[in-house]
Amino acid sequence: MTSDIERKLTESSDLVDEYMEKILKERRPEVLYRSARHLIEAGGKRLRPFLVLKACSLVGGEPKDVVPLAAAIEILHNFTLIHDDIMDNDDLRRNVPTVHKIWGIPVAIASGDLLFAKVYEAVVSWAEGGKVPCERVMAIIDRFNRAAISICEGQVLDVSFISLDNVTEKDYFEMIGGKTAVLLEASAEIGALAGGSNDRELRLLGDFAYNAGMAFQLVDDYLGATADEKVLGKPVGSDLREGKKTLIIVHALSHAFPQEKRRILEVLRNPKISQEDIEEINKILSSLGSLSYTMEQAKKYVEKAKNSLESLHDCEAKTDLQNLVEFFINRKY
Amino acid sequence: MTSDIERKLTESSDLVDEYMEKILKERRPEVLYRSARHLIEAGGKRLRPFLVLKACSLVGGEPKDVVPLAAAIEILHNFTLIHDDIMDNDDLRRNVPTVHKIWGIPVAIASGDLLFAKVYEAVVSWAEGGKVPCERVMAIIDRFNRAAISICEGQVLDVSFISLDNVTEKDYFEMIGGKTAVLLEASAEIGALAGGSNDRELRLLGDFAYNAGMAFQLVDDYLGATADEKVLGKPVGSDLREGKKTLIIVHALSHAFPQEKRRILEVLRNPKISQEDIEEINKILSSLGSLSYTMEQAKKYVEKAKNSLESLHDCEAKTDLQNLVEFFINRKY
Repeated sequence: MTSDIERKLTESSDLVDEYMEKILKERRPEVLYRSARHLIEAGGKRLRPFLVLKACSLVGGEPKDVVPLAAAIEILHNFTLIHDDIMDNDDLRRNVPTVHKIWGIPVAIASGDLLFAKVYEAVVSWAEGGKVPCERVMAIIDRFNRAAISICEGQVLDVSFISLDNVTEKDYFEMIGGKTAVLLEASAEIGALAGGSNDRELRLLGDFAYNAGMAFQLVDDYLGATADEKVLGKPVGSDLREGKKTLIIVHALSHAFPQEKRRILEVLRNPKISQEDIEEINKILSSLGSLSYTMEQAKKYVEKAKNSLESLHDCEAKTDLQNLVEFFINRKY
Repeated sequence: MTSDIERKLTESSDLVDEYMEKILKERRPEVLYRSARHLIEAGGKRLRPFLVLKACSLVGGEPKDVVPLAAAIEILHNFTLIHDDIMDNDDLRRNVPTVHKIWGIPVAIASGDLLFAKVYEAVVSWAEGGKVPCERVMAIIDRFNRAAISICEGQVLDVSFISLDNVTEKDYFEMIGGKTAVLLEASAEIGALAGGSNDRELRLLGDFAYNAGMAFQLVDDYLGATADEKVLGKPVGSDLREGKKTLIIVHALSHAFPQEKRRILEVLRNPKISQEDIEEINKILSSLGSLSYTMEQAKKYVEKAKNSLESLHDCEAKTDLQNLVEFFINRKY
């Protein structure tokens, strides 16, 4: 069953998809452009473009005018996915093989780099319309830069936590802030800036999206351990297999009895864990309350996000954003 | 012995290095910033920043004002080197181990990505000075984007040529144009745009640098086969080892007798070639005139480059650029 918000996401993605298709049109060497488009064409929820369009609309801008920026955010997101999949050695995403699995690491690195350059190509072509003052254009480019830098930092933290057994909740939240939430924050801020927001709207929409992003990542971790694989589009249990320090694991390690803790760490360090191992660990995580704790934290961030929206004026875009963050927490994929 | 132009390169690099140090200052996670600075701190000729500063100066701009742009070009260059070294599986550059050899592929991918984002951070911080009209800032950002896209295309062509035996000279020149010359062209154009050039100066300086870049890559291929390893800072013969289609090889394959051609292809396809193999192939390449042919082509591009400079007004910057392109052809590293 498709919910209202899923229908709205699909609607808003049509224009964005059309623009992405145009800006990623095949050139020589074909393999570079085909690999760069692969994940984008495989689907995705287009949450970040939705944030750009709705934030723009909420502050009184015309969403149609900011389609190139919405596309640029989605292209940035897909660039990071291609590189992350290499770093995490993931085989599957959006129900299709990852870019490096099909074309190899060299082409996958280059196709991510190409997408990154295309982000700024989209921004420049948008800015050449000349509707927005230069200062604001620079502030928008600055948001893209900062988001990309945060993602690099967050991703390296994520990878470096694999070999650490004493990752704290604070470390974890810093990591997902960089890896995930900052890009959602940037999406809303870019839409707001382009739509002509004032400082207050900019701050509230940024806060909203940052907290929504934190919730989104927490639910991602939860689904990564518990979801239906076909619905999720990627293997369930791969965080465990990769030794990732999700909040579920961080919570479990600090609440487990010594014997359970040893067993969790043993499984996390074993690159060849079995389905039985995963089920055994999931039972421990469940008995420790680590799964439900993670969802509780997600819900707290959703409340924070909603509070930021609260004082903005009522309009359709605001309702859409409220529904979006509800969807974050209720989704199955 | 240090030549005049080498002294000038060192001089101009001081300000640029200082800026790069500042913009790449360590933040958490330290490993990301250390790995991102690794190749930059290992040295390099700083040719591309030199082009930015001199092109700016030639058109009447103040080189000190464009240091962030010169740094941004060098950062872009180093980002591509880190990723190229992964793609080519190179172990050594600038006499130090490559980034992925020290920190592994995940960190190397992220550190390249970080540098790419820092390119645009430098451009934005420069543009915020507000001395240059918005249109020109956009034209400058556009040059960065196009150069990055060209490099991705060129690098993928370079890698894809490894498995092709029928690479033509036209293919080769297209590939090095994308991989190398376009970034030198962008460097000169960015300096010119920032310095307030007119259209004619912009075109002539761009043409100069593009042709200089073609010569530079041809000499690179030549040195890669013939240089002193210690002076070069990377293994000699690695193009052969990686099966690369340099102009030397393209020329040799189209001029060799069938038996020589078979032998060259055999060695190119063998990942474990010996020092003896390299020496044997170099003898064939030399007897076919492929090494000298490559240097002749380099010299032709130098002449083209000088012709573009010719009609620009005489000044110190022009002399510096003439000397730079002479250095390209006479260098030993």
